[in-house]
Amino acid sequence: MVQAKFWVLVKHFDGVPNDSNFKLKVEELPNIKDGEVLLEAVFLSVDPYMRVFSKLFMKEGDVMIGAQVAKVIESKNSAFPVGSHVVSDCGWRTHTISEGKGLLPVMADWPKDVSLSLALGTIGMPGLTAVYGIEEILGLQKGETLLVNAAAGAVGSLVGQIAKIKGCKVVGSAGTEAKVAFLKELGFDVYFNYKTVGSLEEALRNASPEGYDCFFDNVGGPSSSVALEQMKKFGRIALCGSISTYNDITPQTGPCPQLTMILKEIKMEGFLQARWEHKHPETLRKLMTWVKEGKLKTREHITKGFDNMPAAFMGLLKGDNIGKAIIAI
Amino acid sequence: MVQAKFWVLVKHFDGVPNDSNFKLKVEELPNIKDGEVLLEAVFLSVDPYMRVFSKLFMKEGDVMIGAQVAKVIESKNSAFPVGSHVVSDCGWRTHTISEGKGLLPVMADWPKDVSLSLALGTIGMPGLTAVYGIEEILGLQKGETLLVNAAAGAVGSLVGQIAKIKGCKVVGSAGTEAKVAFLKELGFDVYFNYKTVGSLEEALRNASPEGYDCFFDNVGGPSSSVALEQMKKFGRIALCGSISTYNDITPQTGPCPQLTMILKEIKMEGFLQARWEHKHPETLRKLMTWVKEGKLKTREHITKGFDNMPAAFMGLLKGDNIGKAIIAI
Repeated sequence: MVQAKFWVLVKHFDGVPNDSNFKLKVEELPNIKDGEVLLEAVFLSVDPYMRVFSKLFMKEGDVMIGAQVAKVIESKNSAFPVGSHVVSDCGWRTHTISEGKGLLPVMADWPKDVSLSLALGTIGMPGLTAVYGIEEILGLQKGETLLVNAAAGAVGSLVGQIAKIKGCKVVGSAGTEAKVAFLKELGFDVYFNYKTVGSLEEALRNASPEGYDCFFDNVGGPSSSVALEQMKKFGRIALCGSISTYNDITPQTGPCPQLTMILKEIKMEGFLQARWEHKHPETLRKLMTWVKEGKLKTREHITKGFDNMPAAFMGLLKGDNIGKAIIAI
Repeated sequence: MVQAKFWVLVKHFDGVPNDSNFKLKVEELPNIKDGEVLLEAVFLSVDPYMRVFSKLFMKEGDVMIGAQVAKVIESKNSAFPVGSHVVSDCGWRTHTISEGKGLLPVMADWPKDVSLSLALGTIGMPGLTAVYGIEEILGLQKGETLLVNAAAGAVGSLVGQIAKIKGCKVVGSAGTEAKVAFLKELGFDVYFNYKTVGSLEEALRNASPEGYDCFFDNVGGPSSSVALEQMKKFGRIALCGSISTYNDITPQTGPCPQLTMILKEIKMEGFLQARWEHKHPETLRKLMTWVKEGKLKTREHITKGFDNMPAAFMGLLKGDNIGKAIIAI
């Protein structure tokens, strides 16, 4: 008999999430049946999308959604031998029984010197998001100038580095001095703390007086409107996240974007990485190669202990993390 | 010696244009030199873009910008024989001396039974705009549902008809009962008066409960935000015009669009027809074919007399016209 701990959303978020939204529960898991495996979480992920998707896809009482890297500790399914690792979307749980559906085995040749937690970050969903945003949505070309906000986050920090690999000028903004120092370390060409620059408009203009070819937007809201005005003719905007609006009770407003977009013939497109699922295997290999070659530096903000998941999630929404927020068991 | 009359922008528009913005002037034109032609306006165009471009590309005292169909009445340039017609961007003028640069000869085989004024409308810039918006920006496919606003206007009325030619369901909105009757006549599937429906949101939902694949936006502003919410997954929005905001003194605001665009993976792109100038000849031929086959019905709102150009322009911005606004000399 294994005891599973899991976090339940007891009350839908209304504004900024707080402790009263979550409840830790425990259950005894039955013995596994033929075809099943028993998973034990090793690393869990908290991501901004959970704030949005909870409202859309969950009802109160559901286990919090999310991905984890888990170890197969019992198996009656030959596809997932004991001791192997998988990425699973089974939510905020320490132990899970699975029939194997939707389990993604971690690359067979995952190098010993690369943390498995990266399967939730650089070589996982955030990495895929960065690549598809850059390649499929922006069509970023060598020599172009790219702007990315929330640039020290899980996705933003990869976006900037991948744009550098592609031979671009990269401008990044973030909200603390430590984050800005991280952007410098990553090789961003220009970086600034949007909370202390005074005028975001001026900071963007100084960073690239000739404007921006591409804008990878993780933040949304009014600050995106400021960036829109500084796009070049035929500028492209990839809408990846809108973290500045996720906790809104009353939706934020901004200047109507249409006229600017017409006169500059700007394209703006929202996307989710799952659209290119057929490319995931090759994209993950590419990301692994960049990591091994030292072209992609990775940083994680690790919270220890399953019991601290809500705190880690709330911290993420406040911007506590530099790099990928991970919970280590 | 020929006397040319022309309208000058004496004062930049500030809010709704009025008579004090314009002044009618007269000048004597010199004799033409080798390589030159003397043009006489036959039809002139007023278009919403003039309200926007005046601010961007004109200074006070300049002749109002705009296109006309003109007849060559004197010629020392063999490319433009006397009696031939051209489309010229020479502005609000009755007579103009040109070196030929930028003059577009009207199709050599223009049919006798098709008014030359259509070279400013259905078989001119508005027609090109409708085609490129549908084909290049929206990539509209047979069986899809398209929404178009300002649907009784020069561009909108063509957009709806072309979408019908392509086998789509077309929903159109306009601002008077006469315009709505025109949409019915053009074969739109659903049409409504946005000024009298009460809730635009409900009208859009009733017109297509399953949402919209494509939205051809001529209006911009807050009403576009309402339409955005009713796009289907992977919806595409072509931003062609933003007439509801052109007279703004204080820019209008609306809900930030990012989160909706991300979750539905919506693409929104602004465009100007000049981007596809290399395709103009074939596109104009296609438009002419549709007109000759009766597949594109054309309607013009004709104002008589060069002296009435400002009134025609101001009327256009108020929505007086059904179909293309034309000034006939």
